[in-house]
Amino acid sequence: MVKYDDYIRDVQNFPSEGIIFKDITPLLNNYTARQQMLKDLLRLCADLKIDKVVGIESRGFFFGMDIANSLQVGFVPLRKPGKLPFTTISESYGLEYGKDVLEIHTDAIEKGDKVLIHDDVLATGGTAQAACKLVEKLGGEVVQLNFMMQLSFLKGIDKVGNYDVKAVINY
Amino acid sequence: MVKYDDYIRDVQNFPSEGIIFKDITPLLNNYTARQQMLKDLLRLCADLKIDKVVGIESRGFFFGMDIANSLQVGFVPLRKPGKLPFTTISESYGLEYGKDVLEIHTDAIEKGDKVLIHDDVLATGGTAQAACKLVEKLGGEVVQLNFMMQLSFLKGIDKVGNYDVKAVINY
Repeated sequence: MVKYDDYIRDVQNFPSEGIIFKDITPLLNNYTARQQMLKDLLRLCADLKIDKVVGIESRGFFFGMDIANSLQVGFVPLRKPGKLPFTTISESYGLEYGKDVLEIHTDAIEKGDKVLIHDDVLATGGTAQAACKLVEKLGGEVVQLNFMMQLSFLKGIDKVGNYDVKAVINY
Repeated sequence: MVKYDDYIRDVQNFPSEGIIFKDITPLLNNYTARQQMLKDLLRLCADLKIDKVVGIESRGFFFGMDIANSLQVGFVPLRKPGKLPFTTISESYGLEYGKDVLEIHTDAIEKGDKVLIHDDVLATGGTAQAACKLVEKLGGEVVQLNFMMQLSFLKGIDKVGNYDVKAVINY
């Protein structure tokens, strides 16, 4: 049984002073730990009907693809501005340390698609909320916000509490 | 049998005038096409002993993780500057449209590790060459440069021809 604390590393003052960053690269670098994380992420959404998995750039790509593979469904990357080459819509949002914009390809989601949104961390909820808006603008239904970790003290749930929010690890 | 041309889309003048961009998002969005790509990528490295898979930000993350899962080995992300929180080394390089820098965590590779480097596209070879240098600086051995696509007309092979370079699709 993997102890996640052995594979998720606290890095002080990253990306800016006063922030403690949860570094998942040791977990990515260990096959056994990765497999357990995937199993735990899948357990969170086991009873749901899901047509698409959306992963948020970039750390949401790792297990986003994994989940989509396990569920045998399409995978859709949400990306920073200027990265997606085809027709996009965008949504701006505030995050823990600054402002940012997310984009999605307009043909990525079909009307009525049941969508699981995955990211590594739920922090202040700004990114997750923007992701929900993008999926809904294209006619998709967000059936779960699925995270490796939730930093509860940042109260992200205040922004996305109307969704099914699940995380493997709660800090 | 999936025809890759149905799932990899040419986008004209992206990211800049005169460039034809190979958009893999339709392939990511189709489970069957994704599975065939994974199978074809694995076939390229079937006879190799591999300890780590390195994926290059961001599009190398998708199938990089997939390959690492199938081989049951560690996965290491190479990232743009300022994204990796722990101690890093970096390497700058010229690419098809501009200049850039790649970073790797210093604890990501152990001396003697046999490393497969994966990215979506081999273009001018600058990114791949920088990735090789980073792996080698940490004492790793690059056993394959593994790509979804090779744009042969950009002559990337001139920069990395001393490695085992393999691609599923050759344009």
